[in-house]
Amino acid sequence: MYEGVVQDLIDELGQLPGIGPKSAQRIAFHLLSAEAADVQRLITALSEVKDKVTFCSTCGNVAQDTQCRICADPRRDTHALCVVEEPKDVVAIERTREFKGRYHVLGGAISPIDGIGPDQLRIAELMRRLGGDEITEVIIATDPNIEGEATAAYLARQLRPLGLRVTRLASGLPVGGDLEYADEVTLGRAFEGRRLIDA
Amino acid sequence: MYEGVVQDLIDELGQLPGIGPKSAQRIAFHLLSAEAADVQRLITALSEVKDKVTFCSTCGNVAQDTQCRICADPRRDTHALCVVEEPKDVVAIERTREFKGRYHVLGGAISPIDGIGPDQLRIAELMRRLGGDEITEVIIATDPNIEGEATAAYLARQLRPLGLRVTRLASGLPVGGDLEYADEVTLGRAFEGRRLIDA
Repeated sequence: MYEGVVQDLIDELGQLPGIGPKSAQRIAFHLLSAEAADVQRLITALSEVKDKVTFCSTCGNVAQDTQCRICADPRRDTHALCVVEEPKDVVAIERTREFKGRYHVLGGAISPIDGIGPDQLRIAELMRRLGGDEITEVIIATDPNIEGEATAAYLARQLRPLGLRVTRLASGLPVGGDLEYADEVTLGRAFEGRRLIDA
Repeated sequence: MYEGVVQDLIDELGQLPGIGPKSAQRIAFHLLSAEAADVQRLITALSEVKDKVTFCSTCGNVAQDTQCRICADPRRDTHALCVVEEPKDVVAIERTREFKGRYHVLGGAISPIDGIGPDQLRIAELMRRLGGDEITEVIIATDPNIEGEATAAYLARQLRPLGLRVTRLASGLPVGGDLEYADEVTLGRAFEGRRLIDA
């Protein structure tokens, strides 16, 4: 429909997650009429991300060096290790400023439908890290969905023999949410995990 | 929050229309774990679009040459000219296969709030094209919104002295739509433009 190179760009943009054909068309025409310098900045950002970003050899988080900023930071607590699925989960937890330990990024969750079993995740690397004697608590912070729960259950079984304190993030009502709109599973978990109020 | 180059990419993606911070993050992490060849294809498509795409010197549509494919096509009817706001409108009309004439792309619509008046649009170029004697009908196909209607009214005034047949696309109920969900302006237009049924 469009001149070849415009259609090529629409097709490539349409491959990105969450971008349908209409959005791809809109973005392509935006870029067509954008300043050449703006498009060049996007091109540079894309090339740099593939050239410069690697994954931390210790935790699997994104890094610009062999170690990510968190693993390289000597002020972080070396006794607590938080296990997450993806690098973006590290960022989400860092934003809370609740956790001062280090991370381990699995690179996904167990999902037999997608062909992802324990061997496709960085679980062997996790077990090797726990071999040392520094880590005393492992906090499993996988997503609260079927795959994340399955991964947490699998990890808990693997970690039990090591005699560590293994915890899981609490499930319950989201803060600022409305009780009547909570789904029954979440509400059930909130009951299950109810806590004494200090009077 | 993220390693520098990842954050740069998220920032650049977030500048694109319709992409918020969450989508930008999702796309950036998708690209991080994508094949280098896929990212390279996107980079190539972006550079080519700025290097190779120009605008047709006749109609203002996107082109890879001095003339776009439609203006260069000798089979198109030279008597009818369809005036649209953007190149994507050309594609939308071409998809209907209803129109065999040529186009004129204004490059937008009159919008005083955005500082766009008649001089910022390709209206002088349109008047020059109409100077020849080939074109006998001008179909104004600007968007059916405030800016598009204002542009259509302005163009109709400019074109009246030339003695051409000037038409506007019909407004009315969208096909496949539901009468009760039509807004009152559209429904009013549908009444205004009602047509005799051939019995």
